[in-house]
Amino acid sequence: MGVINHKGQKMPEQINAVTAGVILIGNELLSGQTLDKNLGHIAKTLFPLGIYIKEATVIPDCKDTIIKTVRNYSNRFTYVFTTGGIGPTHDDITSESIAAAFNLPHVLHPEAHKILAHRYNEDELNASRLRMAMMPEGAALIENTVSKAPGFRIKNVYVMAGIPSIMHSMLEHSVPTLKCGKPLIKKMVFCDIVEGLIAGKLQDLQNAYPGVEIGSYPHWPDGKPQGVRITLIGLEPHKIEQAGKELLTICQSYGAHAEFIEA
Amino acid sequence: MGVINHKGQKMPEQINAVTAGVILIGNELLSGQTLDKNLGHIAKTLFPLGIYIKEATVIPDCKDTIIKTVRNYSNRFTYVFTTGGIGPTHDDITSESIAAAFNLPHVLHPEAHKILAHRYNEDELNASRLRMAMMPEGAALIENTVSKAPGFRIKNVYVMAGIPSIMHSMLEHSVPTLKCGKPLIKKMVFCDIVEGLIAGKLQDLQNAYPGVEIGSYPHWPDGKPQGVRITLIGLEPHKIEQAGKELLTICQSYGAHAEFIEA
Repeated sequence: MGVINHKGQKMPEQINAVTAGVILIGNELLSGQTLDKNLGHIAKTLFPLGIYIKEATVIPDCKDTIIKTVRNYSNRFTYVFTTGGIGPTHDDITSESIAAAFNLPHVLHPEAHKILAHRYNEDELNASRLRMAMMPEGAALIENTVSKAPGFRIKNVYVMAGIPSIMHSMLEHSVPTLKCGKPLIKKMVFCDIVEGLIAGKLQDLQNAYPGVEIGSYPHWPDGKPQGVRITLIGLEPHKIEQAGKELLTICQSYGAHAEFIEA
Repeated sequence: MGVINHKGQKMPEQINAVTAGVILIGNELLSGQTLDKNLGHIAKTLFPLGIYIKEATVIPDCKDTIIKTVRNYSNRFTYVFTTGGIGPTHDDITSESIAAAFNLPHVLHPEAHKILAHRYNEDELNASRLRMAMMPEGAALIENTVSKAPGFRIKNVYVMAGIPSIMHSMLEHSVPTLKCGKPLIKKMVFCDIVEGLIAGKLQDLQNAYPGVEIGSYPHWPDGKPQGVRITLIGLEPHKIEQAGKELLTICQSYGAHAEFIEA
């Protein structure tokens, strides 16, 4: 994938060579019952690996929608990560839907079966729980040190649980299998000024540094403006450094306080 | 749109007659810098109005992606809500992208201009801030009582800010323009049991009540299992009530504590 900046212009460096798409699966996310926190965790884990999330989507537990979305994302991105819908209940249909997306049989995974048989005694391992060992044929397991029932990987798709603590474990165990990109460098400046005042200068700075993605984010921690956070993202440390210094000078020329903060 | 349940079966009632798609726009959401809280607020606002979010997506500040996604969602859903990218800085490109999505000129909206001229004095209202009054031709304004710069509505697309407190104001002012659906009824049962034990019975219950969408959500508040929340969603109060009572009986038959809780 080429690198396209926010203006649709081709950027000079391949900053997005390794890409990811995230599919958050679950009716509860679309009804407002559950606030997703998985996307942020996945993003923070992948960013230092040079894997850049290009798009995420939240879809219901609906087989046709899962099939369509998985096919689309699998074609468009280096990696796809899904969360949710791999538990034992009737509304957990992610696994069978992903098998269908790739026209693969949905079969009992012997190793996953062994893990569940070790985790549950014979009368606990009912038909519903056994569903958690059903996977697309050829799937590789993703270890789950929290509740044992594994996730799986099929082609470029990593299928993980929706419960954050379990997802964290699965993602941690997925990382060693990922091909990393050249890590992006990110710096952040906080400035106690409203962004509207410096917006023209920010545009000039962006024009002067096409290889640095400059983002401006008003900081409203308690529903009120307290300043702006400006991010500088790119591959070349010296350009980020230089753009950052110019940015501090711009902010200070308005009499504002400005400093680098933890990104 | 017909009603398709999680198994891909057509459900007997038109529970999704009025639909919505949500587009969350912003690089910061895909890098893990910002945790989105807007989707949940929009969902909770629309649910009692009988407007059901069928899909949401998180996309970067990239013109081509915004155009493609807005066209797709505008065709598929009754309403589309976007958040983010309507501020004064160079990376705020939502408005011009949505104009392009509908092949409309991107023009200064006279009423929005007036609002900004009232909010800022003459030397404050720089070229960058004036961009916040540029909208697709024919847009209707969405009031913003927090920071004044309005959002807008064009065709079936509601374009709102990303800052939650401002988005809340814009959504509140959008509600009176929405055609409501028949509100869904939602009940929730909490049971101090792991879902794997009752999963078979839940499947039977779902089969017995095809018009009630039964969802099972493990409750892991501190990274550890404390029970399960089961939701019952549908249009017919007596069926929800009846399914709910049967559900309590199921849970109690396992010696578990079960009760209706606030959904």
